Amino acid sequence: MPSRYLNFRCSVPWLILLLILLLETLFLLRFLFSFPDVSDIYSPPSVSYPEFQDVNHMVIFGFGFFLMVLRRYGFSSTGFNFLLAVLGVQCCVLVEDLLVFLKAEQNGSGLKSLAKAVMSTTAVAISTGAVLGKANPLQLIVMTLVELIVFHVSRCINRTFLKVPDSLSLMHVHLFGAYFGLAVASRFPGAPPGLDKNRSTPQSELFSVLGSVFVWVFWPSFNSILAESKKEAVLNTFFALAVSAVTAFMLSALTSRDGKFRMPHIRSAVLAGGVTISYTAHSIQQPWIAMILGLLGSAITTLGSHCLQRCFNPALKLQDTSGVHFTFGLPAVLGAVAAVVLSVVRKGIDTQWSNLSSLGFTTFIDLAAFCQTISAALITGLITGFLLNTKLLKTVPVSKYFDDQFYWEFPHLSVGF
Amino acid sequence: MPSRYLNFRCSVPWLILLLILLLETLFLLRFLFSFPDVSDIYSPPSVSYPEFQDVNHMVIFGFGFFLMVLRRYGFSSTGFNFLLAVLGVQCCVLVEDLLVFLKAEQNGSGLKSLAKAVMSTTAVAISTGAVLGKANPLQLIVMTLVELIVFHVSRCINRTFLKVPDSLSLMHVHLFGAYFGLAVASRFPGAPPGLDKNRSTPQSELFSVLGSVFVWVFWPSFNSILAESKKEAVLNTFFALAVSAVTAFMLSALTSRDGKFRMPHIRSAVLAGGVTISYTAHSIQQPWIAMILGLLGSAITTLGSHCLQRCFNPALKLQDTSGVHFTFGLPAVLGAVAAVVLSVVRKGIDTQWSNLSSLGFTTFIDLAAFCQTISAALITGLITGFLLNTKLLKTVPVSKYFDDQFYWEFPHLSVGF
Amino acid sequence: MPSRYLNFRCSVPWLILLLILLLETLFLLRFLFSFPDVSDIYSPPSVSYPEFQDVNHMVIFGFGFFLMVLRRYGFSSTGFNFLLAVLGVQCCVLVEDLLVFLKAEQNGSGLKSLAKAVMSTTAVAISTGAVLGKANPLQLIVMTLVELIVFHVSRCINRTFLKVPDSLSLMHVHLFGAYFGLAVASRFPGAPPGLDKNRSTPQSELFSVLGSVFVWVFWPSFNSILAESKKEAVLNTFFALAVSAVTAFMLSALTSRDGKFRMPHIRSAVLAGGVTISYTAHSIQQPWIAMILGLLGSAITTLGSHCLQRCFNPALKLQDTSGVHFTFGLPAVLGAVAAVVLSVVRKGIDTQWSNLSSLGFTTFIDLAAFCQTISAALITGLITGFLLNTKLLKTVPVSKYFDDQFYWEFPHLSVGF
Repeated sequence: MPSRYLNFRCSVPWLILLLILLLETLFLLRFLFSFPDVSDIYSPPSVSYPEFQDVNHMVIFGFGFFLMVLRRYGFSSTGFNFLLAVLGVQCCVLVEDLLVFLKAEQNGSGLKSLAKAVMSTTAVAISTGAVLGKANPLQLIVMTLVELIVFHVSRCINRTFLKVPDSLSLMHVHLFGAYFGLAVASRFPGAPPGLDKNRSTPQSELFSVLGSVFVWVFWPSFNSILAESKKEAVLNTFFALAVSAVTAFMLSALTSRDGKFRMPHIRSAVLAGGVTISYTAHSIQQPWIAMILGLLGSAITTLGSHCLQRCFNPALKLQDTSGVHFTFGLPAVLGAVAAVVLSVVRKGIDTQWSNLSSLGFTTFIDLAAFCQTISAALITGLITGFLLNTKLLKTVPVSKYFDDQFYWEFPHLSVGF
Repeated sequence: MPSRYLNFRCSVPWLILLLILLLETLFLLRFLFSFPDVSDIYSPPSVSYPEFQDVNHMVIFGFGFFLMVLRRYGFSSTGFNFLLAVLGVQCCVLVEDLLVFLKAEQNGSGLKSLAKAVMSTTAVAISTGAVLGKANPLQLIVMTLVELIVFHVSRCINRTFLKVPDSLSLMHVHLFGAYFGLAVASRFPGAPPGLDKNRSTPQSELFSVLGSVFVWVFWPSFNSILAESKKEAVLNTFFALAVSAVTAFMLSALTSRDGKFRMPHIRSAVLAGGVTISYTAHSIQQPWIAMILGLLGSAITTLGSHCLQRCFNPALKLQDTSGVHFTFGLPAVLGAVAAVVLSVVRKGIDTQWSNLSSLGFTTFIDLAAFCQTISAALITGLITGFLLNTKLLKTVPVSKYFDDQFYWEFPHLSVGF
Repeated sequence: MPSRYLNFRCSVPWLILLLILLLETLFLLRFLFSFPDVSDIYSPPSVSYPEFQDVNHMVIFGFGFFLMVLRRYGFSSTGFNFLLAVLGVQCCVLVEDLLVFLKAEQNGSGLKSLAKAVMSTTAVAISTGAVLGKANPLQLIVMTLVELIVFHVSRCINRTFLKVPDSLSLMHVHLFGAYFGLAVASRFPGAPPGLDKNRSTPQSELFSVLGSVFVWVFWPSFNSILAESKKEAVLNTFFALAVSAVTAFMLSALTSRDGKFRMPHIRSAVLAGGVTISYTAHSIQQPWIAMILGLLGSAITTLGSHCLQRCFNPALKLQDTSGVHFTFGLPAVLGAVAAVVLSVVRKGIDTQWSNLSSLGFTTFIDLAAFCQTISAALITGLITGFLLNTKLLKTVPVSKYFDDQFYWEFPHLSVGF
């Protein structure tokens, strides 16, 4: 094994160093040549600091502990999520600056630009969930870089050609993250059936609950930080989350054996409301619509988790370690469809259904943005999956899946977890 | 056992569903008929978003982990607290809307209304602590609904007949929650003496400490969110909390065997300052008064915990699992008394003790509000306790008290906690 | 053992009580005589409440859990940190009031004064880390009182004689805390080599990671709360932290055996960026400078941890339990040096290097403040260390180091951690 690791040591650090230097160089160049069209990064923020902190906390802390499900993978879950998040934020700033330089994007400034970078990083946290325990840090870093670049390009297409507003284009992050992650995961060999390391303990489950409660509490900030009508976004998200949490308990008791609750269901389904409402939180005018979306989101997650784990995943030989497909993927699809329906209904009522061609065009645009995002995610995800499983990136042997000891030094080996 | 559970499955989900539908219908009706006197739920908030988040975080996360004391009851403690909190918030919104509709209450709007709902839910979190490990989810849900309705009615009486300001009437939440919970708990059969599941482990204790530190940190937001003089409320609460935390350590070392510290004492007593100061945080003009209140609150909690556990509880055959009587009940009584005294002294000094009859009237009103709240809590609590222990609600056999496995599916049964 | 404890019981509580009474008396006196030059403590705050909460959360919660590294010392780590933090805040308010009374300091008011008190308390949290598991509560309380008084005096000298701005003088807190702690720790007898209680378990390590992620997330608030240009301070701190986190992973993989990651390295190094940037966060005009400082800070921490633990500490017979020397000490020195260099370069460029004598004077002043702080820390730290190890303060026998059971009552002794 040492030979593998020397090789591994030779790759990760230098890759990271290269990225940092690139970023530094870019900021330095920007300073030296002071691009005329790039406004100062310290210009007044349009994003309030407490909200930025909420989102920051949610992505760095919340998702890091949300992923801490596996019983022997706690260090890696939270550590790698942290590494990928900070790396991802820097990568996003870099890519955004390049896009600004190429005139492909308006200039975001200071805290707002940073907030968008942190939000984009959610895609990486979600994708990581799909390959949790299977991908080594090198593969994860490469995945992060590819994913964030593709996500930025996809957002750029949505914004430029389909005229999707910037704040909405960012809400595709759950959709993109989930399907990109699934596509990548489909290229990884499955864990052998006898391996029991991909179980959770009550202990690890509790840490994961801690993380998901954090994510739950901060979700209204996530949905409202870039919205124009923040008040509506906060209230709608809160109602959707509340209903989805209650529904999660209801359906968990209904669908499980003996009518007991299942923590994994609940952890996933409480968040479904936030994902489902993300496209429409700022535009819904009635709380009951938000609540119905929360109910549907939670339902699709709980029922989806049964269907996917029994039929879909075995058929495709897909192992989705922490269930991102039903936690983020399905609710995001539902949310996107709901956004189209609500937008059509609202515009239809406004125009008294007189201008059907304009209505059709809006619908077409919305659907196009959705399809473009999901297909970009799936195609580039598959390609990334292939790349990650080449010999170059030191794939992990299946027997070493889900094991902290493969990546971390334990000076306290004798002590049991 | 399966027969019990099928029955249990038949009740909880449908009860939850009914509640959601009721809530949805109300919002829908409100939208369809657009009640003229009900202002828009999205009107500008008078409560700032970061403060709302603090309170939200405190109730959902803080209390959830604060209750995680028992060694085999971690999932239920945090999970059921989460369920009851979100259910309670929705129930409060529903009840408040009904009261607005019945003209019994001014209209709260948007974020403020939601903040009040979240704060009211604290009563449920406190009451749950008294029956922790004994009540099943069905009983807890019924208790939540009854408690919140009674609390709203009690607040309404205080506000309408006794002219207590709205923000103050909400501060009775600790008093109400504690005595309602105790009254309910007194109707539950005690745990058999041999049962050792109601112990804590260092592990569960640490999670509980985590929760109480959260509650401690966010308490100034809780006391100031509705206050008119927020600055005073924040500073007084902080000083009271700081002194009560320090006193907690002092008294814990003084009263325990061998002069060692006891974590359960400290966990309770650090919060006592916040409860004691809650009635007067906005009106105290001198920090030293706040500090004395914090000191007294902490003292009454620590000493109370010894007296109650040795004399009062055995005499009444009361089992108060997480000690809500001394953690929230006694400090709240102290706080209410202190509020009366301080108000009398202040008014007395202002009028140079010339208008004694007016002074007497004020005192009478304050005491009346206190007595009305505590008697409403005790009486309805007792009735609720009787109701919960009818056969209909599937009472838990005492041998299954304090056990997660009665409610949760563990796919990882073989792994010890 | 009981005899020791009766004695211990006779000291800690009374010391705490005395302090509280002193504080109360001071506030009471201030009220009774209404010092003309002391403005009202409730005057309008210049510090926003959410930022104050962030700093409060970081010190109380973050550092408390950050220190929870040792496997049998979880209660004491978090409990004593909490006790010392609240005690320290009150002591700071007391000292600051005295200094205001003695006209040695401008009057800070309300929330700002409290925020400064909380920030000063960081010094205590850091020093505690150096003697973690060795000092008993009585020694820690004495240390806290001495340290905070000396720190205030040192800040006062910096401000009065060296004209260091108030907000900058507070940033010496990491430097002061680390070297004071080290000097104190050098006077404690080392743990016997066979004692294995100063190990960590994956469990305790995870709690510690939880704490450090909290500290990481809230660090921008810490550096910006008193700064005049908050936006710059937030962004620079964020970039420095992000780069230092990424560098931490890079260097951990490079320097450890087999190229694996080491959690203790990473926990320390992710925070290094925040410490390094603390002196200059508000004045740096280019993010790339902040990023380079983050990189250097993280590098000095990781490399320092190897050098110090292998050469420096054994030579001086120093046991620095949680590694505060490389976590806070070295990055703070680097930050202070960087601040001098950056200030010289900036002023040099501004004046086109024409006024070298003025430049030399500025440099001299900055260096003098740095040397004054570090020597005050080391000298008073050594004296405090001697005092703490007199018989009066009941030193802990080395065989009882790192053990919760020496201080806490465990009603659940039979259950393993």
